Amino acid sequence: MTERRRDPLSGEWRTFATHRQDRTFLPPSDQCPLCPTRDPSVPTEVPWSSFDVAVFDNRFPSMVAHPPPPDVAAFGVHDVLPATGATEVVVYSDDHQATLASLGQDRIRLVVDVWAERYAALGQREDIAYVFVFENRGEVVGVTLHHPHGQIYGYPEIPPVPARELEVARRHLAEQGTCLLCEVVAQERADGLRLVARNDAFIAFVPFAARFPYEVHVVAHRHAPSLLDLSDPDRDALAAILEQVLVGYDALFGFPLPFIMAMHQAPSDDGEWQAVSHLHLEFTPLHRAPDRLKYLAGSELGGGAFLNDVAPERAAAALRAAR
Amino acid sequence: MTERRRDPLSGEWRTFATHRQDRTFLPPSDQCPLCPTRDPSVPTEVPWSSFDVAVFDNRFPSMVAHPPPPDVAAFGVHDVLPATGATEVVVYSDDHQATLASLGQDRIRLVVDVWAERYAALGQREDIAYVFVFENRGEVVGVTLHHPHGQIYGYPEIPPVPARELEVARRHLAEQGTCLLCEVVAQERADGLRLVARNDAFIAFVPFAARFPYEVHVVAHRHAPSLLDLSDPDRDALAAILEQVLVGYDALFGFPLPFIMAMHQAPSDDGEWQAVSHLHLEFTPLHRAPDRLKYLAGSELGGGAFLNDVAPERAAAALRAAR
Repeated sequence: MTERRRDPLSGEWRTFATHRQDRTFLPPSDQCPLCPTRDPSVPTEVPWSSFDVAVFDNRFPSMVAHPPPPDVAAFGVHDVLPATGATEVVVYSDDHQATLASLGQDRIRLVVDVWAERYAALGQREDIAYVFVFENRGEVVGVTLHHPHGQIYGYPEIPPVPARELEVARRHLAEQGTCLLCEVVAQERADGLRLVARNDAFIAFVPFAARFPYEVHVVAHRHAPSLLDLSDPDRDALAAILEQVLVGYDALFGFPLPFIMAMHQAPSDDGEWQAVSHLHLEFTPLHRAPDRLKYLAGSELGGGAFLNDVAPERAAAALRAAR
Repeated sequence: MTERRRDPLSGEWRTFATHRQDRTFLPPSDQCPLCPTRDPSVPTEVPWSSFDVAVFDNRFPSMVAHPPPPDVAAFGVHDVLPATGATEVVVYSDDHQATLASLGQDRIRLVVDVWAERYAALGQREDIAYVFVFENRGEVVGVTLHHPHGQIYGYPEIPPVPARELEVARRHLAEQGTCLLCEVVAQERADGLRLVARNDAFIAFVPFAARFPYEVHVVAHRHAPSLLDLSDPDRDALAAILEQVLVGYDALFGFPLPFIMAMHQAPSDDGEWQAVSHLHLEFTPLHRAPDRLKYLAGSELGGGAFLNDVAPERAAAALRAAR
């Protein structure tokens, strides 16, 4: 069963892919499917014996370009669609032990270019409305493969979280005549209390109303709707600030900090979002202390109301001191 | 620092309570603060030596009736309010080892009455717009106290998840002239494939587009906006079906299944929601297999788009077979 079903209560689309129940789960490092193929008789997902960055379709996809027909038919309040879309894997290095931070700024810059290229290519597909670049890092986040990698999903509609942000930003633009995130950036630069890092083109800061104690947003100073609106120096600046954030994360508690990274940029279906969308990366580590996690429980999951036990200004100071 | 901050990107309010960072964390069972006070020189949170059900204010509250002024002032796109509200603890039993399922239907009925009474009492407070009954169960959900208990939050506004559901239901009512959840109940009763349990007044079913593999919704057949609209026999029927769902959960994998339970009912601020709101309880266990959890990662947390590896119809069959 591979299909998309719409939840009548929330109106949100959800994807079912029951074959994923048997996906590869934390294999030993000598059987890592994301390592290069060093012995042709034992091929991995990557056919080369060495590489810098590799991109390929997820072997256990939840959405594909030509999905099978759904198992059930739509009826009444229940809506169903084929699981159209894309799920790609971006392997950051052929070194199983590396992290994006340890790979250095040049490699991060190459990854930025790969993200931009895939954003453009997937965005041109008629069946994809939103290209979503993200990374899950660490077992506490549910990672099933340790080799350093991120993912790119192409959804057939704008998913709920970016859709909500875009709707709020569209209303702000209509009422105030300004880009909401441009205003956020201006306030955070002027205030400085929540800044984690800054350079000529980007700032990294703990958001004013962070959901997670050590949440960090990375945002361009100027109004760039997507990665495609960044100049070459902008992309260098993004790579530089990402390295700073990641090094700070790993220094904070003295171990590689697990996190989810989610990149929000312009939907790819048409041009109406260019004035509204402002590229940003949201890092959400789950730790609230070296030995404590922030869990999503009743208030967060059942109510959508986040509780946070750490003041964003203190978290930013700790992250500044760490790197 | 105890205050509420509005996230400019999503428009959502988030609560900061930094004193909670030091809250009691998985104490040994002989130091359980929710056990009865058996030795007056070592008082717990409950002053009695035995009790059926106890309700009291959370000792580490995130919201209170008379909060301190916020640490920061609102400025520009950043909005701040005092952390007004209520956080109550509902202890289901004086037996540290009990579970709601093991306590039996009469005790569950008493808990239903307590929920209804607190919903009414908190809802009458001018500063509370939404009364949210929930339970976090199990360490994988982040529970910090094992003694069987649930919680009740009184929020100063309708939190995002119920707000979204109410908005969708309001639109459905305006366009179709019917209650959305009444239609869902009719379809699930007629279809039967996703039913887990049923009686004269309630059904329990795996939702058509479940977020979690073994998610179960418990919904009244008739249009009851809140617990206060249930008759005495209805409350008995709710207790009976809750016992069936909980016994099934614990039998499914042979251990007490961790879950989040979230109750959605009418906001308490005025009468406009009576036609729109339809009481329901959402159970979301995190397990997708006995030794595997479903994690909220990039797609769910960063995008809001849920992926589910188990067909709801199969999950319902497994839950029916388990009890």
